[in-house]
Amino acid sequence: MQSIAMTLASLSLLASSVALADLTKVRDDVRAVAPALEKYRQDTVFGDLWKRPGLNRRDRSIVTLAALITRNQTAELGEYLDFALDNGVKPAEVSEIVTHLAFYAGWGNAMAAAAIVKDVFAARKIAADQIPPASPQLIALNEAVEADRAKRVGELFGAVFPGVTQYTTDVLFRDLWLRPALAPRDRSLVTISSLVASGQVAQLTGHVNIGMTNGLKQAEIAEALTHLAFYVGWPNVFSAMPVAKDAFEKRPANGGARP
Amino acid sequence: MQSIAMTLASLSLLASSVALADLTKVRDDVRAVAPALEKYRQDTVFGDLWKRPGLNRRDRSIVTLAALITRNQTAELGEYLDFALDNGVKPAEVSEIVTHLAFYAGWGNAMAAAAIVKDVFAARKIAADQIPPASPQLIALNEAVEADRAKRVGELFGAVFPGVTQYTTDVLFRDLWLRPALAPRDRSLVTISSLVASGQVAQLTGHVNIGMTNGLKQAEIAEALTHLAFYVGWPNVFSAMPVAKDAFEKRPANGGARP
Amino acid sequence: MQSIAMTLASLSLLASSVALADLTKVRDDVRAVAPALEKYRQDTVFGDLWKRPGLNRRDRSIVTLAALITRNQTAELGEYLDFALDNGVKPAEVSEIVTHLAFYAGWGNAMAAAAIVKDVFAARKIAADQIPPASPQLIALNEAVEADRAKRVGELFGAVFPGVTQYTTDVLFRDLWLRPALAPRDRSLVTISSLVASGQVAQLTGHVNIGMTNGLKQAEIAEALTHLAFYVGWPNVFSAMPVAKDAFEKRPANGGARP
Repeated sequence: MQSIAMTLASLSLLASSVALADLTKVRDDVRAVAPALEKYRQDTVFGDLWKRPGLNRRDRSIVTLAALITRNQTAELGEYLDFALDNGVKPAEVSEIVTHLAFYAGWGNAMAAAAIVKDVFAARKIAADQIPPASPQLIALNEAVEADRAKRVGELFGAVFPGVTQYTTDVLFRDLWLRPALAPRDRSLVTISSLVASGQVAQLTGHVNIGMTNGLKQAEIAEALTHLAFYVGWPNVFSAMPVAKDAFEKRPANGGARP
Repeated sequence: MQSIAMTLASLSLLASSVALADLTKVRDDVRAVAPALEKYRQDTVFGDLWKRPGLNRRDRSIVTLAALITRNQTAELGEYLDFALDNGVKPAEVSEIVTHLAFYAGWGNAMAAAAIVKDVFAARKIAADQIPPASPQLIALNEAVEADRAKRVGELFGAVFPGVTQYTTDVLFRDLWLRPALAPRDRSLVTISSLVASGQVAQLTGHVNIGMTNGLKQAEIAEALTHLAFYVGWPNVFSAMPVAKDAFEKRPANGGARP
Repeated sequence: MQSIAMTLASLSLLASSVALADLTKVRDDVRAVAPALEKYRQDTVFGDLWKRPGLNRRDRSIVTLAALITRNQTAELGEYLDFALDNGVKPAEVSEIVTHLAFYAGWGNAMAAAAIVKDVFAARKIAADQIPPASPQLIALNEAVEADRAKRVGELFGAVFPGVTQYTTDVLFRDLWLRPALAPRDRSLVTISSLVASGQVAQLTGHVNIGMTNGLKQAEIAEALTHLAFYVGWPNVFSAMPVAKDAFEKRPANGGARP
């Protein structure tokens, strides 16, 4: 059963400002060679997954953008960028998602995404004043948490890998994560989605904890993994689930604030 | 020493209906800048690997398609689709491979592949009646095996990740895997190849067992890994070998049927 | 503070012979939608990372090419190939890097890279006599080390995976690695970078040891990981660091020569 809201959302997908003819062709191609795939797309992905409670459409769009950019899948990125903006993701947030993923997915992924974002922003006449400046006033750092993180990473890697250790502190945790146009909770959603999308579950425990400290709820992370199963494939999510479950179970009752 | 069959196969590769000029250019480019790579292609990959016993050319084509789609490597996909059809993979099977990989490699990978499949099918005048319908009569489910799988996954993840758990049952094991136009044995070959191609060896133990229950022989899986070494790189295969070996050794003598 | 050398390097990047208009457009796109990303590019990546001691610009170019080819990121590859040649990587070395990565990153990655290398070489009028032949005189093999490697791999995998085991000996260690136009030390740098870029850290211990035997210094490997953090994303490097650190610590005092 398809709600009016969802029908509208589907229309918005179809009315995408980006390469509409191309998209229609892709749909027709899919229907022609794999009718089942088109059926799953309509019934399961857009008819069910995107409507599930537990994670709103704005957050699902953030998860999807993180997945596509991390996997360098630019073919459908324009369409999902349009859908994200329709779903309430702000242009400034899109800009920060791209910049954030330069560090978590790799430089080239962000560069490729930026070119497509440019086209989507141009088509929607998004003005320059909606784009975050290069060097804004940063949000306040939780010095105690960051000092603890830096101490742990420093003890592990500081002596052997001084470069990575220093950049992690200076560029990531004392700069990138403090840029104000994307909330820490949303940066965590982007980071967790990116880790699952790239199969990098070794970092997931730490980022599940950071994310919950930043305000993500366990059920939201679980639902993000459900969403990701479709966009990054079942195996990545089945590898992530035991790690995330373990992180949920071991999370200290005080919410993860470290002594 | 090159057999006539293989010479014909090479010709068929060259006579590809898809972007022949482009392919000839790629060959010329490779010969110009990396003559060794072209030598390895002729002598080792097509002159030796594709002729090895233990896995026939049809199955090698399925393994190769799964690898290319999983890695979103569309550049050579058209050529290998043509080769696969020449090697006896049916159009209906190609359609199901793409749909299957939407769930195992990610949605965007299948969408990108479908567009190329469309062109290859059009060039070969493959008619609509050779494409599997969206909702066919499903093959019979082994209820006992599926109940066991659902129980195990449910106990592990049902409470924390209800969405993934439910979709895995409803969409994957009670629908996708039962679509009749691709045999369960071939779905397992696709799935195992995809797991190796994406480095997701954590799921390999389970799928080696499912695959052998579905009729794949140990030697075929081993030879699929040999084939994959070239198409997805040595490291992915060296990570997969200990896991697959362990699964072979621990496989119960009764063929994996669970009590 | 930007040195003259680096300013020149930046100019050389801008004066790339490959698709200059496209590159300028990408820069403009990035500046328009993510000014922070452009700031990080100028200040952190080219203003700081590429100037760090511990790994010279030639080696950083090799690391970067290996990362881009392994991740099949062809969009910026032409630019970085030009930069690599400016930084002293020889055309013959570029040719061998592509061929080497066919085996470590996958066949299609090398094929896609070759097409771009062709264009860069053509634009720079690099003549055919600078390209290594398909079948050169190989460098001498360290028979003892190779016999030991073959024995270990053979014991682990020979019986179950005879194909991979045989190709690893015949094609990789008795042929590819002995091709003279890329020094073993540089092949190790390419291999280690590729493993980190693809998240295949399971093979890293062995290749850190091979690399140090081939002349790579621990500090160079550590700095390569720092460089890779930007090009392949922080998570891949954070997964690689504990493995590399462990390999450094366990490396025998005799430099890894096996009895």
